[in-house]
Amino acid sequence: MEKLRKIDKNRIAQMNKYRVLRCLIQKEPINRAAIAKITDLSIPTVMSIIDDLIKKDIVRSIGKGESSGGKPPDMLEVVPDRFYYIGADVGRTTIRVVANNIVSRQIACFQEPTRDPFPEGKFLERLCEVILRVIDDLKTEKNRILGVGIAMPGLIENETGKVLFSPDFGWNNVPMKDLLQQILPYPIMIKNANHALALNESQPPYEDSLLTTFSVNLGYGIGAGIVMGEDLYAGASGTCGEIGHIVVERNGPLCRCGKKGCLEAVASGEAIARQAQEAIRNGKSSKIRELCGEDSALIDAKLVFEAANSGDSLALEIINKAAEYIGIGLSMAGNVLDPDRIVLCGGLMKNGPYFLERIKSSVQEYKMWQAARQLLICTGAGGEYSTANGACRVLANDLWQRLELPI
Amino acid sequence: MEKLRKIDKNRIAQMNKYRVLRCLIQKEPINRAAIAKITDLSIPTVMSIIDDLIKKDIVRSIGKGESSGGKPPDMLEVVPDRFYYIGADVGRTTIRVVANNIVSRQIACFQEPTRDPFPEGKFLERLCEVILRVIDDLKTEKNRILGVGIAMPGLIENETGKVLFSPDFGWNNVPMKDLLQQILPYPIMIKNANHALALNESQPPYEDSLLTTFSVNLGYGIGAGIVMGEDLYAGASGTCGEIGHIVVERNGPLCRCGKKGCLEAVASGEAIARQAQEAIRNGKSSKIRELCGEDSALIDAKLVFEAANSGDSLALEIINKAAEYIGIGLSMAGNVLDPDRIVLCGGLMKNGPYFLERIKSSVQEYKMWQAARQLLICTGAGGEYSTANGACRVLANDLWQRLELPI
Repeated sequence: MEKLRKIDKNRIAQMNKYRVLRCLIQKEPINRAAIAKITDLSIPTVMSIIDDLIKKDIVRSIGKGESSGGKPPDMLEVVPDRFYYIGADVGRTTIRVVANNIVSRQIACFQEPTRDPFPEGKFLERLCEVILRVIDDLKTEKNRILGVGIAMPGLIENETGKVLFSPDFGWNNVPMKDLLQQILPYPIMIKNANHALALNESQPPYEDSLLTTFSVNLGYGIGAGIVMGEDLYAGASGTCGEIGHIVVERNGPLCRCGKKGCLEAVASGEAIARQAQEAIRNGKSSKIRELCGEDSALIDAKLVFEAANSGDSLALEIINKAAEYIGIGLSMAGNVLDPDRIVLCGGLMKNGPYFLERIKSSVQEYKMWQAARQLLICTGAGGEYSTANGACRVLANDLWQRLELPI
Repeated sequence: MEKLRKIDKNRIAQMNKYRVLRCLIQKEPINRAAIAKITDLSIPTVMSIIDDLIKKDIVRSIGKGESSGGKPPDMLEVVPDRFYYIGADVGRTTIRVVANNIVSRQIACFQEPTRDPFPEGKFLERLCEVILRVIDDLKTEKNRILGVGIAMPGLIENETGKVLFSPDFGWNNVPMKDLLQQILPYPIMIKNANHALALNESQPPYEDSLLTTFSVNLGYGIGAGIVMGEDLYAGASGTCGEIGHIVVERNGPLCRCGKKGCLEAVASGEAIARQAQEAIRNGKSSKIRELCGEDSALIDAKLVFEAANSGDSLALEIINKAAEYIGIGLSMAGNVLDPDRIVLCGGLMKNGPYFLERIKSSVQEYKMWQAARQLLICTGAGGEYSTANGACRVLANDLWQRLELPI
């Protein structure tokens, strides 16, 4: 039903400005009349907004366009490197940082190992150093940095930027935003890494639609994010998407979250490696033994996939079981959420098409007949900086929504 | 981000009319100036819309209100019985039909046993008779009936009103809307019964908010619906909420849906009764035997709850296991969807507070720590006609959204 609403007039003026800028970002190069038409604003309103944006060096003219009868119109574009979003993906093994300009083009990236996350204060100081190094390299003024989005594995209290619980980092109740804010003089936004990744993975082809995308990160851990249309669905407490911690095997192996038999404990990269290590230690014959040079501590999920791809039966058994369990988890998401797309991302998906196919069959096997008929399952296309770019997008959406750009 | 949008002017005029009527429904009695203020429309616009609605006998004056300085204003209300929504809950055991007026007050209700749902055509003829009897009893003109909303257990193709698959009815691909439309001369809308129930159960206290409600129907079968704010979330293919068919016990008992180990196959009313029947047939000693007079075919879930409430250990074992599994299912919904509320409805919830408490403990046991912190679990308050009233609401939302009221 149509809502009853009353909007403040100043807010409308400000929203009109954002609408013009957004139109420019999406459609540049474009002239004033076309902007007026698309945004449904009057030509004088658009002209006055554009004048203001040009004065502030946010928009610029790039010469005359084609005439449609009268004078050739003045074509406009956004000054691309006038403002930057910074995004950091603080992963268990690697920290990745990107700088994106206001038209969401990645213009810088950097990565280094995460190393020891303790003590938290010390670790966060180092994280700030990494972020500030990327900002320094941009050789730009401070007020051109719109903010820093941080993608963090674990449960985040979105309002305060506190990390409530991060199994990956072994952190409980770390006031991450407050600690970073003592060093970084920019707006900071902390978000669950899987949510940031989901926002980035659902963007390019699906924009401006109302599709629901369930994006799953299958890596050392397992987590997901939900995007509806253009917006992240947060859930009531900001913790939606924790599909890694649904119980798929009662009294199964202990999970890092403290429960038993979670999907993550039986099907994540960590679980795949652990199962292979145990089998090798128990003397099972397998190509894995040869690949790790008899040192079971060197076995990781990648190595198990390598053995599986060469036909090793132990490795295949472990991989197939993981795919089956992931399919059980995804069939639940399919039954309950009925999304348009499940996008599978993360390290486990980088080992050839076999795993994806096994997961798809398992979903078919366990999903209710006729439920989620539209469901498409595919792999993510965002690359290794996808989560960091997602952190930029989360930040951007937040600043745009709260009308907090310096425009 | 703000969307770029352009809205047709005629549509705006029509939307303004709906906005005024909606304001009246929510705030009546109310005067023209107050409507203008709440809806942010000009006084002349509101006056002209009200004149039109009065002429059509949709709104009426009920005399003068209190003066706030000048002339006492004319107070208005919606003519309550000018229009009716009809809602039918076509359940496995009982058909329930209600008539609600335009301000959503239930003004008539009727029920009778469902009996044999085959052949489908014959059954649907009888359903139409029941619906037409309720409409006849209203003693009103045909054009005052806005439409008929039908709540049906099973997977529905919302666009066509086809029942794709209904385990409760044993139906596959029944073009229900088309068949009903041959008899009923009203707009018809077919919706999954759990979705209709969810919409009704999430309404009264939560309206106009942005809360997510996950409403679960625990009865002979198990299903759910998701309401976000005021709107039903449909999912990509209209089949969301099928929590009864998530697999909680691999290679568990066969489910009516054809899969094994679904939540419904281990924890529904049907599963509770079946487990008790099997135990009694296998000679287990239990109070259940006495309650059913040694005839195991007479055992239903209600009887098992009765035995459990008197302390019978077999009954308690069955009930506790069902509660544990339901808790596993709900903890998944909690982890993945992170709703504000889970509302538990249906026959299983009518057997005292014990079952709810066991379910809550199981959710706590299986839900990820710190996830879904806002989650409130409660029982539904809509009564036995809740699903039928939900069918009216589904129909109403659809007619309002598509601006298809005769106003």
